[in-house]
Amino acid sequence: MPLTASDRRASTAAPIEEILAMRWSPRAFDPEAVLTDEQLTSLLEAARWASSASNSQPARFIAARRGTALFDRIEQHLMGFNRAWAPRASALVLAAATTEDDQGKPLRWAEYDTGQAMANLAVQAHALGLHVHPMGGIEVEGLRQEFDLPQRLVPITVTAVGTVGSPDALPERYRERESAQRTRLPLADLLLVQE
Amino acid sequence: MPLTASDRRASTAAPIEEILAMRWSPRAFDPEAVLTDEQLTSLLEAARWASSASNSQPARFIAARRGTALFDRIEQHLMGFNRAWAPRASALVLAAATTEDDQGKPLRWAEYDTGQAMANLAVQAHALGLHVHPMGGIEVEGLRQEFDLPQRLVPITVTAVGTVGSPDALPERYRERESAQRTRLPLADLLLVQE
Repeated sequence: MPLTASDRRASTAAPIEEILAMRWSPRAFDPEAVLTDEQLTSLLEAARWASSASNSQPARFIAARRGTALFDRIEQHLMGFNRAWAPRASALVLAAATTEDDQGKPLRWAEYDTGQAMANLAVQAHALGLHVHPMGGIEVEGLRQEFDLPQRLVPITVTAVGTVGSPDALPERYRERESAQRTRLPLADLLLVQE
Repeated sequence: MPLTASDRRASTAAPIEEILAMRWSPRAFDPEAVLTDEQLTSLLEAARWASSASNSQPARFIAARRGTALFDRIEQHLMGFNRAWAPRASALVLAAATTEDDQGKPLRWAEYDTGQAMANLAVQAHALGLHVHPMGGIEVEGLRQEFDLPQRLVPITVTAVGTVGSPDALPERYRERESAQRTRLPLADLLLVQE
């Protein structure tokens, strides 16, 4: 029997915010759900206000709603099974890291900070009742050519954003994952040294 | 006249969650404020449940409360002015990225995912009324030796966690920053292509 959403809440040794505890990455998106202008702006503003090393703000985005030419241009550079499910999302957000500043100086925390920005976007999405699924399986060179990105701009992920839909459209193997128990390593395994 | 907290709320073109809008990185921490066991666990659980590429969970942590030997071992590897203010924080959290799995296969999104984990930690901190200040100015090799970290574990940041305190203990230049307007590039500058 599929687990309920509540069963799938993160299991934690101390309470965490509901938005963080209920976050998961669906593949079953509702192909009818539409993201409003304001929702998309809220998501990008959340990313924009993330912290970054010395406020260097290395994260850059290409955000497109389903049904636009831009969405299709991003979507065609997804890899493997991502191309099967991600087109049903309401929007795709490409996140790229600026790895050097205008003077060619490396921005050491560019990828870390881009991750911070996209985690903030995920928090905002959940606050709006949406879900996100970040994808690393993307054609980096294909995206670079598609959008004429200089070498210092590195595409890192494409994140599908939308409303959870019926898993029926997914192959069985993936359908089950939509309601499977979420798992993490024990917290003790993540701590390199204990106090 | 110093700006109020409300003046310093992120200025956005569409609403974002209060926790994201009010987040900023203080240097003035209250040296008496103590982080409880449960609070520290909540912070680490928030980081633990962040998303990561194929659930690879590359982020690793060393977390220590002020007044412990472990805190001092981390603190001595902060660089420059960080050593002046960060010791007043209630805790320091070293974040390291696991850049290869056990089979030596590169984990491409290790730094991005570590950023996601620490952004979640920041969200949880604000939910608890705390603030965080991530520092990139750390002695990477010093920390590696201090904690006997293998090459595949890369220290990325040390984050100070605590309660905002009086800026009086800071030199004037930094004191003013505690109440300065927060700034970001215009959203349009972060979008590489528009819909």
